[in-house]
Amino acid sequence: MIILGLDPGLGTTGWGVIRAEGNRLSHLANGRLKTDSAASLPRRLAHLDALISALIADHAPDGAAAEEVFVNANPQSTLKLAHARGVVLCAAARGGIEVGEYAPRLVKKAVVGTGTAEKAQVHAMVGRLLPGVKIDGPDAADALAVAICHAHHLASARRIPDPSK
Amino acid sequence: MIILGLDPGLGTTGWGVIRAEGNRLSHLANGRLKTDSAASLPRRLAHLDALISALIADHAPDGAAAEEVFVNANPQSTLKLAHARGVVLCAAARGGIEVGEYAPRLVKKAVVGTGTAEKAQVHAMVGRLLPGVKIDGPDAADALAVAICHAHHLASARRIPDPSK
Repeated sequence: MIILGLDPGLGTTGWGVIRAEGNRLSHLANGRLKTDSAASLPRRLAHLDALISALIADHAPDGAAAEEVFVNANPQSTLKLAHARGVVLCAAARGGIEVGEYAPRLVKKAVVGTGTAEKAQVHAMVGRLLPGVKIDGPDAADALAVAICHAHHLASARRIPDPSK
Repeated sequence: MIILGLDPGLGTTGWGVIRAEGNRLSHLANGRLKTDSAASLPRRLAHLDALISALIADHAPDGAAAEEVFVNANPQSTLKLAHARGVVLCAAARGGIEVGEYAPRLVKKAVVGTGTAEKAQVHAMVGRLLPGVKIDGPDAADALAVAICHAHHLASARRIPDPSK
């Protein structure tokens, strides 16, 4: 199963593609999509839409995943992020791909083992879980992390539930 | 010139199409687009994208307009709105249509004459400015209001600036 992890943003969207075979994970590709900050908001969104659609066509993922988003200390940044995230989720769904959404603490727990891990720990662990990966910056690392989280979630969902847990 | 006004929302997106010939405005159509609240966020966004794209194909507007958005008392609602708004702006830009964005007080000023007008005044004035219009609820009224604002803005931009103002 090929999983596309996405870390949406209006300026920079991180992405990462992994292969999951049971509990075995391997890295396929990762990178960043950028839009021109001098262009209007609608044009930047249409550009992002085209870039995501091309990414999906190139990698033909079976599933996708993104972190949930919350309003933070900077509401205007959060609004821009939510516009971009809407376009990214829409492009995936339009491509027939289901998108899993995960709270940031679930992503940290899946990758590091604890929901309170620091960003640097998450990024270091992504490198260990995907041997040989060369990560194209923090946005791509976040995208690979949510892809790993999705892979774990799908693997757990396929297992017979353990009544002792 | 045919102008599409949009009042984006995840559950309901209001829309209104008017014709502007200089200062003369006339109503062409208005309505509401709805998505299924039982569907996942990505699927709702993809559905909204398809509905907006069909609307643009049907009415072939020369321009579009939407109100600016701010984080309000309910951050979760604002986030949903921003996801939907991102998809709506993107669909318009993808269709080759420029989208004007206006602060709510500018829309009120264009329609009623004062930036502090009540919603009910705005809706009543939309009815007077577009004789014979039958408005499909408050979301469509808001969409027609921003279309009227865009028409005024374009008409002013075409006039020779008055140095006494």
